[in-house]
Amino acid sequence: MRTQVGIIGAGPAGLLLSRLLALQGIDSVVLENRSRDYVEARIRAGILEQHTVDTLTAAGVGDRLQREGLEHSGIHLQYPGVRHTLDFPALCGRTVWVYGQTEVTKDLIKAQLDGGPPLLFEVSDVRLEDVDGDSPRIRFTDADGVPQVLECDAVAGTDGFHGVSRPVVQGAGGRVWERTYPYAWLGILADAAPATDELIYAWHPEGFALYSMRSPTVSRLYLQVDPSERIEDWSDERIWDALDTRMALEGWSVNRGPVTEKSILPMRSFVSAPMRRGRLFLAGDAAHIVPPTGAKGLNLAVADVTLLAQALVRLLQEKETDLVDSYSDRALARVWRCTHFSWWMTSMLHRSGDDFDAELQLSQLRRVCSSEAAARELAENYTGLPLEL
Amino acid sequence: MRTQVGIIGAGPAGLLLSRLLALQGIDSVVLENRSRDYVEARIRAGILEQHTVDTLTAAGVGDRLQREGLEHSGIHLQYPGVRHTLDFPALCGRTVWVYGQTEVTKDLIKAQLDGGPPLLFEVSDVRLEDVDGDSPRIRFTDADGVPQVLECDAVAGTDGFHGVSRPVVQGAGGRVWERTYPYAWLGILADAAPATDELIYAWHPEGFALYSMRSPTVSRLYLQVDPSERIEDWSDERIWDALDTRMALEGWSVNRGPVTEKSILPMRSFVSAPMRRGRLFLAGDAAHIVPPTGAKGLNLAVADVTLLAQALVRLLQEKETDLVDSYSDRALARVWRCTHFSWWMTSMLHRSGDDFDAELQLSQLRRVCSSEAAARELAENYTGLPLEL
Repeated sequence: MRTQVGIIGAGPAGLLLSRLLALQGIDSVVLENRSRDYVEARIRAGILEQHTVDTLTAAGVGDRLQREGLEHSGIHLQYPGVRHTLDFPALCGRTVWVYGQTEVTKDLIKAQLDGGPPLLFEVSDVRLEDVDGDSPRIRFTDADGVPQVLECDAVAGTDGFHGVSRPVVQGAGGRVWERTYPYAWLGILADAAPATDELIYAWHPEGFALYSMRSPTVSRLYLQVDPSERIEDWSDERIWDALDTRMALEGWSVNRGPVTEKSILPMRSFVSAPMRRGRLFLAGDAAHIVPPTGAKGLNLAVADVTLLAQALVRLLQEKETDLVDSYSDRALARVWRCTHFSWWMTSMLHRSGDDFDAELQLSQLRRVCSSEAAARELAENYTGLPLEL
Repeated sequence: MRTQVGIIGAGPAGLLLSRLLALQGIDSVVLENRSRDYVEARIRAGILEQHTVDTLTAAGVGDRLQREGLEHSGIHLQYPGVRHTLDFPALCGRTVWVYGQTEVTKDLIKAQLDGGPPLLFEVSDVRLEDVDGDSPRIRFTDADGVPQVLECDAVAGTDGFHGVSRPVVQGAGGRVWERTYPYAWLGILADAAPATDELIYAWHPEGFALYSMRSPTVSRLYLQVDPSERIEDWSDERIWDALDTRMALEGWSVNRGPVTEKSILPMRSFVSAPMRRGRLFLAGDAAHIVPPTGAKGLNLAVADVTLLAQALVRLLQEKETDLVDSYSDRALARVWRCTHFSWWMTSMLHRSGDDFDAELQLSQLRRVCSSEAAARELAENYTGLPLEL
């Protein structure tokens, strides 16, 4: 087999890259070691920046997003006794959209299988070869157990944190930055109408809580818990009670309903640099992980592949190396901005440290809720900064 | 002896309070356990917010400040390869003034001794009595060794972190928040013309450095050092070399000159609440300490006594307790805002922690140097927020 760009990993990053390349006349093959059912069932983030919405729409996969996505014009920030709304259009002229990453993935898979470039599920034994030359190769075993070789002009590693691509880049000398947070999120999906128009980010002495939603009938809620907590110890009732306590506000309450999914998610910051080795380019979670508080993970992946698609088109069609040469630096500028913002939102909202830290958090929250400059700084970062920083 | 307000401590807070009260017809006595020479020789901060300048001027002690103070319209933020200027008037419509706290103290002492309320130096054995009643008393021994009793309607504790006032307030039940930073400042005064128009706050892998000035011929410079460093180990040449390294910029250099003062200053955040017990009111360092990075210490003290003077005038002239009752909460709102800002500036600029922390610091600095919202947030806090938050 031969293609121009071999893409490892069929998450939103790899699938969108394949689509953006196809629109420019570049062919690709997407390899995924999981099944379609598995990939489509993974529950992830749900906040899209305007830039992400625009990119998906321009790529022809925005129809359902436009129909079913919920445009949100702000968030609520809460600390005991206060629930304050940040009005994003007033602060920075932008909005965000609530539309699950799972749905984005489904839309992209559907489009890919409907006449798009090849997408192979359940491949195994993926190995990269000759990424330092002009003709890298991907060896793998297909779903039928047949060994295959995919000859490429370039390879995109969009196979996430645990994928095979990053170690290949790191193997040539690279740096890693990492931070593990001393807390985790217990997340639930519930068949309950959201009791709020906007997401609620709530600071509470007992820990952070987040009220978000997936649709007018499905709520997504999170609780800060210790990373050592076991999900078995959290009955639905215990979870609802904790949500009631942490998001308590006079005359308002959380809407309860059947819990359809329940899990504990660790929180981590991770950056790997450079994002390139020869003809192998990393994008999305393969190169960086952010804690979910700032809702930046999916949006960063989309920004990465937007830059990468431009760079690969220029390399393969115009034979110019300038954009692939600058890809890593340009992507990392945005990665670090979002890494800092995600760390900042996370550190402001999660209880950790001593009483002085708690007062610093409350001071910062009061400032964001009373100062236009501080509120705008949050809003600009949250709704998404320009592609090139 | 009898007075309306007994003031313990002849730093800028106590002296200015005495003066503000006198202007409203309230008499006071200021007690200081050090000598005049000692008090006037203490070298402290040197950046005055506009509010502080306005207050000193309105209090009739702004003549020399207006003549010799240097109005500054911004600061330089630096990290390797970049020196960026924040233009305060453009960002928030305000400026700051460079005028040493030592000079403020001298001006206030001179005015006090020139027909102002009594100011007694070198008192000892200061003890507070009956602060919970309407007639508190201060017992002390005067400079001649004679025991004295000062009967008051109210007492102001402006005697700093190590003074006698705070323990009396804390003794009735109060809370303390504290943070010791894992670094200190090595500061020098040098007879050298500043090589910069504005203060330079420089992040460097080897540690923070600050270039400030006291006059057109006197520079004040600081280096981040380990708190365990001994000043004897830092020759003038070693200090100048470290300043050169940390503030290096193509085509520019630090101006050297005779070093006239050299010391190592610990860095700490401290807040004590409430700031009142009965008729005893704390102001300035007696209630709170900030690290010097945000230049907030003196300005907070001036804000405290501005609020306190209003409250005491209302209590003693109009017999209304509303402003004394709200004094602590109103003062603490500003104290926590400045405590957070000082912690933020300090944490952004001093090397500490791991490589991930270093990248977070650089991300924050790059953001402040490229975003109007982030720059304005720094400028508004640095130049001083409104008296009442």
